[in-house]
Amino acid sequence: MVLVGGGPGDPGLLTVAGLEAIRSADVIVSDRLAPLAALRHARAQAEIVDVGKIPRGEFTPQERINAQLIEYARQGRRVVRLKGGDNFVFGRGGEEWQACAAAGIAVDVIPGVSSAVAAPALAGIPLTHRRLTQGFTVVSGHLAPGDPGSTLDWAALARTNTTLVIMMGVATLGAITDELLGHGLDPATPAATVADAGMPSQRTVRAAVSHIARVTADAGIKAPAITVIGAVAGFEPGRTEPT
Amino acid sequence: MVLVGGGPGDPGLLTVAGLEAIRSADVIVSDRLAPLAALRHARAQAEIVDVGKIPRGEFTPQERINAQLIEYARQGRRVVRLKGGDNFVFGRGGEEWQACAAAGIAVDVIPGVSSAVAAPALAGIPLTHRRLTQGFTVVSGHLAPGDPGSTLDWAALARTNTTLVIMMGVATLGAITDELLGHGLDPATPAATVADAGMPSQRTVRAAVSHIARVTADAGIKAPAITVIGAVAGFEPGRTEPT
Repeated sequence: MVLVGGGPGDPGLLTVAGLEAIRSADVIVSDRLAPLAALRHARAQAEIVDVGKIPRGEFTPQERINAQLIEYARQGRRVVRLKGGDNFVFGRGGEEWQACAAAGIAVDVIPGVSSAVAAPALAGIPLTHRRLTQGFTVVSGHLAPGDPGSTLDWAALARTNTTLVIMMGVATLGAITDELLGHGLDPATPAATVADAGMPSQRTVRAAVSHIARVTADAGIKAPAITVIGAVAGFEPGRTEPT
Repeated sequence: MVLVGGGPGDPGLLTVAGLEAIRSADVIVSDRLAPLAALRHARAQAEIVDVGKIPRGEFTPQERINAQLIEYARQGRRVVRLKGGDNFVFGRGGEEWQACAAAGIAVDVIPGVSSAVAAPALAGIPLTHRRLTQGFTVVSGHLAPGDPGSTLDWAALARTNTTLVIMMGVATLGAITDELLGHGLDPATPAATVADAGMPSQRTVRAAVSHIARVTADAGIKAPAITVIGAVAGFEPGRTEPT
């Protein structure tokens, strides 16, 4: 079984090894956010299994996906688990690996271009910038601050002085930015939301962190989108210095 | 001018679009850590310019690289700036973009697979894991804590409860882990150092964060290597639960 990271959506951002794995697969277990255009490279007889998850809609439970991967592999078929981005960045690749390993199935990994890194770059925002930002932090916005399931320390996240990238946070962006501001983040900190990175529909909105949730909502942006918070979010192609 | 992220070293981890850019380039300005094997796809008449930086050794100053990129582009040649990993993750892609934009040179971006994401995955360590780790933080270890040039808040970094990935930190790992422990990080937190990720020479050492600097040094690990600190670093392929 091969875990293949499909990149942010543009099939050009699939890796050479990932493309080769798709070309030789007997079964491809794919997600909604995987680069579906890449599937045209699959063999005609390959079986494509869509376990795509629509936010708050229909989906295949993770346990069922794990069982399917094991079942297909035991049939002696070459199985590709194709995800958007990278399988280990909020992609549950670890769980699928564990389940397969526990069943005695060998697992290979082909890392992908994560949207956490690619989406800012495609919008002209460098995640790091010499003398300005010596690191970046990527968090899931799936659980709002204060949710009992959340394990993040937002007080610390407000103060690391790294670029903060929020994934899956369109619905929770107001709660997250309020939390960061409440813990002392400068309200004038630049921020940007990038929607549909790498796709023809890509667009970016920019505002100070104190206003980015409203500006993102007013623009009608829906998932998939990421929000970048930090000095680098003031960087725009064509400017000679970040704001 | 095209900024191309070359991935962690294995030419299979170059993107399809990145490979195409290399194939059609007139000039390729390349680094020591770029996937040199991918250069065999360059046209016979393409000029390969090595501006590789050897740690603390010879290198081409960044201002000279910027000037070269502008000069080649003004000659009407198709210029690829090829970096290892992704150009915007400690790759100075932002500076090169700014310099070219200021000179009126159009810049395209082809994101790459960052070693920050790929190296842990290739070692069997998921950066995030449901219910365990809802984010990850990537920092440069190039400047030790306390260095006047450092802008990172290590007290906050010790407490985010995200997976911490340290790049370019082989020489400073002892100082960094001491700083994190001094700010309250649990000394039993699992950690792992992955050297030469994606290359045949890849290897991983594991220890609690309190011992990872010594274990890394004792193993004779040199750059390039990354260190992962967090519960997921206790995850090993074949185990059914992370330790």
